Amino acid sequence: MIENKILLTECPDDKGLVAKITNICYKHQLNITHNSEFVDNSSKRFFMRTELQGIFNDEILSTELDLALPTGAKHSIITRQKKRIVILVTKEAHCLGDILMKNYYGGLDVEIAAVIGNHDTLRSLVDRFDIPFHYVCHENLTRDQHDHLLAEQIDIYRPDLIVLAKYMRVLNPKFVERYPNRVINIHHSFLPAFIGAKPYQQAYERGVKIIGATAHFINNELDQGPIIMQDVINVDHTYDAYAMMRAGRDVEKSVLTRALDLALNDRIFVYENKTIVL
Amino acid sequence: MIENKILLTECPDDKGLVAKITNICYKHQLNITHNSEFVDNSSKRFFMRTELQGIFNDEILSTELDLALPTGAKHSIITRQKKRIVILVTKEAHCLGDILMKNYYGGLDVEIAAVIGNHDTLRSLVDRFDIPFHYVCHENLTRDQHDHLLAEQIDIYRPDLIVLAKYMRVLNPKFVERYPNRVINIHHSFLPAFIGAKPYQQAYERGVKIIGATAHFINNELDQGPIIMQDVINVDHTYDAYAMMRAGRDVEKSVLTRALDLALNDRIFVYENKTIVL
Amino acid sequence: MIENKILLTECPDDKGLVAKITNICYKHQLNITHNSEFVDNSSKRFFMRTELQGIFNDEILSTELDLALPTGAKHSIITRQKKRIVILVTKEAHCLGDILMKNYYGGLDVEIAAVIGNHDTLRSLVDRFDIPFHYVCHENLTRDQHDHLLAEQIDIYRPDLIVLAKYMRVLNPKFVERYPNRVINIHHSFLPAFIGAKPYQQAYERGVKIIGATAHFINNELDQGPIIMQDVINVDHTYDAYAMMRAGRDVEKSVLTRALDLALNDRIFVYENKTIVL
Amino acid sequence: MIENKILLTECPDDKGLVAKITNICYKHQLNITHNSEFVDNSSKRFFMRTELQGIFNDEILSTELDLALPTGAKHSIITRQKKRIVILVTKEAHCLGDILMKNYYGGLDVEIAAVIGNHDTLRSLVDRFDIPFHYVCHENLTRDQHDHLLAEQIDIYRPDLIVLAKYMRVLNPKFVERYPNRVINIHHSFLPAFIGAKPYQQAYERGVKIIGATAHFINNELDQGPIIMQDVINVDHTYDAYAMMRAGRDVEKSVLTRALDLALNDRIFVYENKTIVL
Repeated sequence: MIENKILLTECPDDKGLVAKITNICYKHQLNITHNSEFVDNSSKRFFMRTELQGIFNDEILSTELDLALPTGAKHSIITRQKKRIVILVTKEAHCLGDILMKNYYGGLDVEIAAVIGNHDTLRSLVDRFDIPFHYVCHENLTRDQHDHLLAEQIDIYRPDLIVLAKYMRVLNPKFVERYPNRVINIHHSFLPAFIGAKPYQQAYERGVKIIGATAHFINNELDQGPIIMQDVINVDHTYDAYAMMRAGRDVEKSVLTRALDLALNDRIFVYENKTIVL
Repeated sequence: MIENKILLTECPDDKGLVAKITNICYKHQLNITHNSEFVDNSSKRFFMRTELQGIFNDEILSTELDLALPTGAKHSIITRQKKRIVILVTKEAHCLGDILMKNYYGGLDVEIAAVIGNHDTLRSLVDRFDIPFHYVCHENLTRDQHDHLLAEQIDIYRPDLIVLAKYMRVLNPKFVERYPNRVINIHHSFLPAFIGAKPYQQAYERGVKIIGATAHFINNELDQGPIIMQDVINVDHTYDAYAMMRAGRDVEKSVLTRALDLALNDRIFVYENKTIVL
Repeated sequence: MIENKILLTECPDDKGLVAKITNICYKHQLNITHNSEFVDNSSKRFFMRTELQGIFNDEILSTELDLALPTGAKHSIITRQKKRIVILVTKEAHCLGDILMKNYYGGLDVEIAAVIGNHDTLRSLVDRFDIPFHYVCHENLTRDQHDHLLAEQIDIYRPDLIVLAKYMRVLNPKFVERYPNRVINIHHSFLPAFIGAKPYQQAYERGVKIIGATAHFINNELDQGPIIMQDVINVDHTYDAYAMMRAGRDVEKSVLTRALDLALNDRIFVYENKTIVL
Repeated sequence: MIENKILLTECPDDKGLVAKITNICYKHQLNITHNSEFVDNSSKRFFMRTELQGIFNDEILSTELDLALPTGAKHSIITRQKKRIVILVTKEAHCLGDILMKNYYGGLDVEIAAVIGNHDTLRSLVDRFDIPFHYVCHENLTRDQHDHLLAEQIDIYRPDLIVLAKYMRVLNPKFVERYPNRVINIHHSFLPAFIGAKPYQQAYERGVKIIGATAHFINNELDQGPIIMQDVINVDHTYDAYAMMRAGRDVEKSVLTRALDLALNDRIFVYENKTIVL
């Protein structure tokens, strides 16, 4: 059966890597429909993303790659199919709403398995799209307890990715480690400016002329994870913090859904707290 | 004689301010060719910029405005004429070059009285445009001594504005206070991200996907002055710090000349460390 | 009772217009919270939009303006309240979806009275938001007959504005005249490039590097009405017509909702087939 | 001797092309420092640009590529060195000025062999940069005669590329054919909108909200050649045609120099009147 798969390769740089990998694909009679590679010159590291079409024998392919590539190489052969996500939210609807709507009309190729809120506010919106909503209240719980409840609820759905669509609580290291490079957050500022709470208030007070949003994988330092995508809009002296917040919604939702789209298409490598997007 | 002037008014907000000011202009038979006003709701402060055409009696106009406006009002009647600037540089040519070239072909309406460098590197470029270049070396001088020499050289030309076109030294409080809201700097980052030295190196290390530049008036805190204009460009994983620096030049020069153009047209109010651009 | 209203004034330019209008407002003890004006120098026409706060006597205010303003002046005093719209659609969901969603979370201040489709495709989406959907099929009808049915259905809801959210049929002059400057369309190209059908196919064939969208009021020439807003995104050789269409959705929906927002806030004057946005 | 070269390959698509080409490079012990490829699915055509480092035997490399690639393949091995250009101008200085200035400070890696004007206006500017200026007047000449004089003057310098930096005359087919895909023009509109003369006047009359510029190779239809790069800026009702022209200069110069930079780095393939930029 003819299938479409993606081969992701990452290893120390060496001569002939492209030749070696594409040779193996050619021997397997796999057609390369798209190929992108990148060598990071400072770390001497090689990254390649290869879209392949043909009849796959993953096991043999993988073995041959192991033999051909230098020590320390990582590769994965990914079947192109709809990925499953769980979305975490608090009270704001715009990011969640954009994902729901884009998924509805085919603008995002994803299965939204469930939405989980630490408030019940967005249940009605999620219900309209016939998707399960779970209210996991954080009140009277330690952060660890609440994170644990979240993780339990999330794991029922075995998602490929977790999307924080304006989930307004910090997640603990244990949670972060459970889903390495699988949790995408949207921060409502142009990081690293305005880390932490109330970035629009901070932006207003500094008198900036541009505001932005940043989608990133979370790690264990607040707003310090690998950045996937950023975008900005112009503001001026007529914008107070509230007006910035309103104007910022569009860029937040757009940045988050575009970053999610990259992740859904296996286009993101993470290395040394940065992303390589191929 | 029919002249074009600009009336800048700033005062505590009150009912009827627009009516009062425009009435006085009307009584003087001055035609308003363009008018912009802004009320800052948090500070309850009123700002208005009025382009006027007609036969002016500045003294009477000014007295009538004094009488009509609330206590604490500031107003100025500015004759529209070419402003004079002095440019400070170090070694990089792109911002200086853009100002020289735009002025050459009429894209900036300014008289470049002189260029002063703490290195002699850019003398040849400035010579090509028949503009005086002064080399004021900082070696073996304290910062105060050097600033003093700069100020002496600057003051010979009595400039309206001083432009730091990639002048890579910090200026002391005494210098700053000598030219309040008259010194425009270009910082090669999207402030407040990456304050201080080597912003492109900082940006590279953080793995941002957008870099920018900020034009601001200098004050006594490094890179903390009122922001006039900002702009950004997209970068990706293929940009190292050097590539960012090269790509950033275009946005630096564009932001600086556009900010300068606003200042040359008396379009900037400064209030509470922010700019209102009318 | 203290109310917020907007005064829109449009007339041949003359000295003292701002003074005359703001004087009348001041006499009525109305506070100007925001004011913008524009004089078109080629046509010598004056436009002003004044946000007012206070206790209104519309009749006296209007009479005084009539007396003060030159012959040919138009003015209107508009109470700031939620406007009512009817949306026309065909099969594509993204523009409709964005209006529904933004309205849902408060990003657009509007009452969506009904959605009318010439196909039944989007009924299910509209139902999810508890808004009436009417299927007005065009099959076996002349264009005039279909337009007439549409107009009948529209008029039941007495909308302030009609939004064509990817309504893929041309509307006849009779329809256009019924709702002058009240029908907003989104065209999926950067007008005047690629007028008419299949703009993305045209864009692909021409090999452009940027695609765009244009929101405009409709008039009786196809894609020739006054432009309200335009925006663009970058594309490259990897985009075929289908990829452009997919990428274009985001800019289409964003341009349409932002143009609608301007109209909802009475910020658009139409004059000589252009818009003045104050 | 270790050299840096670029291999450009273009041929009908086939399985294993990347493998075949990179194998040959590997056999030659050439290191691939950067590789980009693209397959146009509609025309089934393969394009690849490979940056190579090592000791080259161009003849053997070329023969092996000939043998390995399908019939109809084109490939070229290009030594990375400063390219030579001749610039054609009329009276406007901004595009010329930006190329001169960027070249001066190292922002463009190019040798400007000469500037030729059909007016003498810009001689003084070119003189300042110690570059030959030739005045080739078009008066009292047929277009063919003038084009011929231009070509004669151009050919003395054997340039790699010819840059039309606001050269305001149409060039005849004979001229175009002499330099296939080697003449870059900047058109001051967002093509295909506003083809031909006075695009800013056309843009003003249509009331557009965005204006742009387009860099393209010239062909024998006015403003119809393969587009290399486009960019835009926002305008509004306050811009008349003159203001658009002034504002447009920055985007014109930026688009032209960026397109030139792509050409200088051998990053542009032309196929079926489109560009593939790798």
